[in-house]
Amino acid sequence: VPPAVADLSERELVDRIRRQLPPAPPWLLVGIGDDAAVVEPERNRVEVLTVDALVEGVHFDRAFVPPEAIGHRALAANLSDLAAMGAAPRLALLSLALPPALPLADFDAVIAGFAGLAAAHRIHLAGGNLTHTSGPLTIDITALGTVKRRQALTRGGARPGDELYVTGTVGAARAALEQLRAGLAPPRADAYLRPQPRLRIGTLLGRNRLAAACIDLSDGLADAVRQIAAASAVGVRVDGNALPIDPTAEEWFAAQGRDPLIAALAGGDEYELLFAVRPRLRRRLDAVLRHADAAVTRIGVCTDGGEVEVHRQRAGAEEVGPLPPGYSHFR
Amino acid sequence: VPPAVADLSERELVDRIRRQLPPAPPWLLVGIGDDAAVVEPERNRVEVLTVDALVEGVHFDRAFVPPEAIGHRALAANLSDLAAMGAAPRLALLSLALPPALPLADFDAVIAGFAGLAAAHRIHLAGGNLTHTSGPLTIDITALGTVKRRQALTRGGARPGDELYVTGTVGAARAALEQLRAGLAPPRADAYLRPQPRLRIGTLLGRNRLAAACIDLSDGLADAVRQIAAASAVGVRVDGNALPIDPTAEEWFAAQGRDPLIAALAGGDEYELLFAVRPRLRRRLDAVLRHADAAVTRIGVCTDGGEVEVHRQRAGAEEVGPLPPGYSHFR
Repeated sequence: VPPAVADLSERELVDRIRRQLPPAPPWLLVGIGDDAAVVEPERNRVEVLTVDALVEGVHFDRAFVPPEAIGHRALAANLSDLAAMGAAPRLALLSLALPPALPLADFDAVIAGFAGLAAAHRIHLAGGNLTHTSGPLTIDITALGTVKRRQALTRGGARPGDELYVTGTVGAARAALEQLRAGLAPPRADAYLRPQPRLRIGTLLGRNRLAAACIDLSDGLADAVRQIAAASAVGVRVDGNALPIDPTAEEWFAAQGRDPLIAALAGGDEYELLFAVRPRLRRRLDAVLRHADAAVTRIGVCTDGGEVEVHRQRAGAEEVGPLPPGYSHFR
Repeated sequence: VPPAVADLSERELVDRIRRQLPPAPPWLLVGIGDDAAVVEPERNRVEVLTVDALVEGVHFDRAFVPPEAIGHRALAANLSDLAAMGAAPRLALLSLALPPALPLADFDAVIAGFAGLAAAHRIHLAGGNLTHTSGPLTIDITALGTVKRRQALTRGGARPGDELYVTGTVGAARAALEQLRAGLAPPRADAYLRPQPRLRIGTLLGRNRLAAACIDLSDGLADAVRQIAAASAVGVRVDGNALPIDPTAEEWFAAQGRDPLIAALAGGDEYELLFAVRPRLRRRLDAVLRHADAAVTRIGVCTDGGEVEVHRQRAGAEEVGPLPPGYSHFR
């Protein structure tokens, strides 16, 4: 029988986590091992705080999500929230509720997935909590980042006339999840298993005051559009023909007789950014993002009506429809 | 059938939480409802961060812990960690994994218990996360406090000769838990159900530079003594006769034929503070804590041996023994 989490004490598990971590930065005055972490704030910055939980059976299925991907995705969800605020990541707290029978190798792999993405974005584990649970594996991560006060991005600053952009492509994460569930090997499995939070683009948008509003696509593009519309009190007209749908996802949705546009709008688990830009900043946006790690695509415009709708040209005719419902992880 | 958590959307539940909260303070620049919270740091302070989770079946039993007490205890555990660092509380993030069948009235009561203690200590809910779970109710709270850099208390500053003090009394929480489990009405039920974190004493100790080391008793007094000894590289000699054992707990332990001293040392779920004070500061300590909300009792001394032991006079003879094992919530 391979060793399981139940065979080790809390301290032994904490030691296994520590072994996977780089040295603490000088601003982490007290790290893992005291009643709490003590952190030197960064000068002239405000702090950005977010918490996100992944629950086995709700947010991931261990049948096809390897433990290392679980750790990666749990942190990615938090880093994506920081990216959507224009913040640079600084530290994380990791709270794990562990089924006692969880193999120790899986525990180590969850930590490796977390630690790998943390190292890539220089976010330091400052503390956490371990407990057993009679229920599913649950990973709760709190992330803290910093941003200059006037550079923080919210959902609420868009105005009629602002143009909406999305990073990367959409639909691939949803397609990959469906393919994994069907026992297939997705052409873009990492879009679902190892999403890359758009921290570089988020901070570039904030520093250059380019985005009037910003949100990530964790609950899907349709939901993100609605959230910006509601928080900014604008309408949105999405140009369906402009949507950068991932080609492999488009093929997957179409092969099943589904409308790829609707499927891509509705799909969740996507960690791209949606942001609004004043039209006069369009050239500046192009210049700033020329060297970013992903393309951005203009997909719509904010309007002064209350409507949120998607337009497209199909078979020579203009179609207008409502956005599909968003994707909720809640249930 | 009374309404359950599953009958409401995530947004409806968030709205129910918001209704129980006071207005946000001016330093909370962005609160609940965006991708993350944005917080103005406090000038000339370092930040203290802690996370603690309560899992049904591991940390509490809903058979005798009312939902309001669950919310209270979850926050108290975090506030106690801040108290042990000498920090003043500022904000919390609340992450709940909810069984769908949880009655809505219980959900509201959990929030009420959290919100009541939060209001008493002016800690503001800045954000959080809600999800369903197929497992037990799990409450994960991150708390952030602030303290002047040189006033932060750790476990590691005690020296041989320092005297060890404990706040309040010990044993009552353990006795109350045992009585609740036995279906009895504990004389001091609140010691277990609604512990009061020692924030006032913690900040007084920090501000007046009185404590060389400090820790809370969440894993029991014996464990706390060992943690200070290990982190400070000192031995400890506990004076068993000096221990402020709660009289009702002493009676309960004795009536069961157990040694009240050992039971009180081993018991967990206690949110008192243990701290080390240089002997020359004894009078200053008395003066500063005269108006505190709990008495403090000298219970031992740090030594330059590596030993951690308890001494007592019993039947005219001096007894020396090891400390009992600590109380672990982990399993």
